[in-house]
Amino acid sequence: MRLDPARERAILDATRELLSEVGFDRMSIDQIARRASASKATIYRRWPGKEALVVDLVCNHLENETAPPPDTGSLRGDLVEAVTAFCEALERRHGVILGLFPALLGNPSLAAALREHAPRPDLTGSAPLLARARKRGEAAGGDPSRLRVLIESLVWHRLLIGGRPLDRAFAEDAVDTVLLPLLRSWSGTPA
Amino acid sequence: MRLDPARERAILDATRELLSEVGFDRMSIDQIARRASASKATIYRRWPGKEALVVDLVCNHLENETAPPPDTGSLRGDLVEAVTAFCEALERRHGVILGLFPALLGNPSLAAALREHAPRPDLTGSAPLLARARKRGEAAGGDPSRLRVLIESLVWHRLLIGGRPLDRAFAEDAVDTVLLPLLRSWSGTPA
Repeated sequence: MRLDPARERAILDATRELLSEVGFDRMSIDQIARRASASKATIYRRWPGKEALVVDLVCNHLENETAPPPDTGSLRGDLVEAVTAFCEALERRHGVILGLFPALLGNPSLAAALREHAPRPDLTGSAPLLARARKRGEAAGGDPSRLRVLIESLVWHRLLIGGRPLDRAFAEDAVDTVLLPLLRSWSGTPA
Repeated sequence: MRLDPARERAILDATRELLSEVGFDRMSIDQIARRASASKATIYRRWPGKEALVVDLVCNHLENETAPPPDTGSLRGDLVEAVTAFCEALERRHGVILGLFPALLGNPSLAAALREHAPRPDLTGSAPLLARARKRGEAAGGDPSRLRVLIESLVWHRLLIGGRPLDRAFAEDAVDTVLLPLLRSWSGTPA
């Protein structure tokens, strides 16, 4: 059943906040109801349970609109912008994602629902980035999906394991020491 | 104050289990005491609080003894073993690490204590691996610490974001599409 949009928004906002603050496993429908000033009955009229509510939030209501990284006129500049764009997206959203990690590994039905339905827009813009570089005649061989995974991997590691700032120096270092050398190698261009 | 070693071990084991099951934020000294069949007073005689107990566990009592990946006789073989070794280490330990993630981002004093004191052995063996390859005359330029970060980044991403198996096919793909091409580029060798 649909709810009044303002009420639905309040419940989704409360879910997002609690997911960041206490994580999926610890968050209860009780808490969500209190935070959203809604009754539990109202929540259950719209969603069968906590899992369905979270899947709906992540798949349909997280702001996924992000401008694609701009054309800077060079492959190096575009790569720095791509890494930076992913860093910024992660800094906005890592609370919710971290709140889900333990559940993703420990709750197979939630994990499957999210992996199947959650949108995974390419925030790095790797495909248009490589297409622009090839048009300019720059050494930019390889598969955009591999470039995307590599950028995402380096940024996540820096945030979670390194615990170090996602700043411009990091983006430039990743580009100069990993991404550009790899693109050169993928293109068969001598270093 | 030191405790009887068997009692200390039981408390540390209970902490490790609860960290994996419920995470740092949700774990209480009460729960640890119950699980370890110890009194809270006993725990407080040895550690000032939950944070100190977790820092002690992670820094001094997680099994960090892992055999270094073997010399397979070739750079490619050694890289596949290095990725596999890190996958195996992560599969044994990711429960504890995941239990700490939210606290690492939300609890600066715990994060600082862990980042300062936790051992970070290089489970990939990147330095001896590159040294062996150079001795064999293989194209293995570059900084071992960069190779290590790259392997760790790809494996963590696969586990957390991709949610896909850390199997041999993944290790070989990472080696053939990312690590070997990058080492070639770092060595200034044409692809």
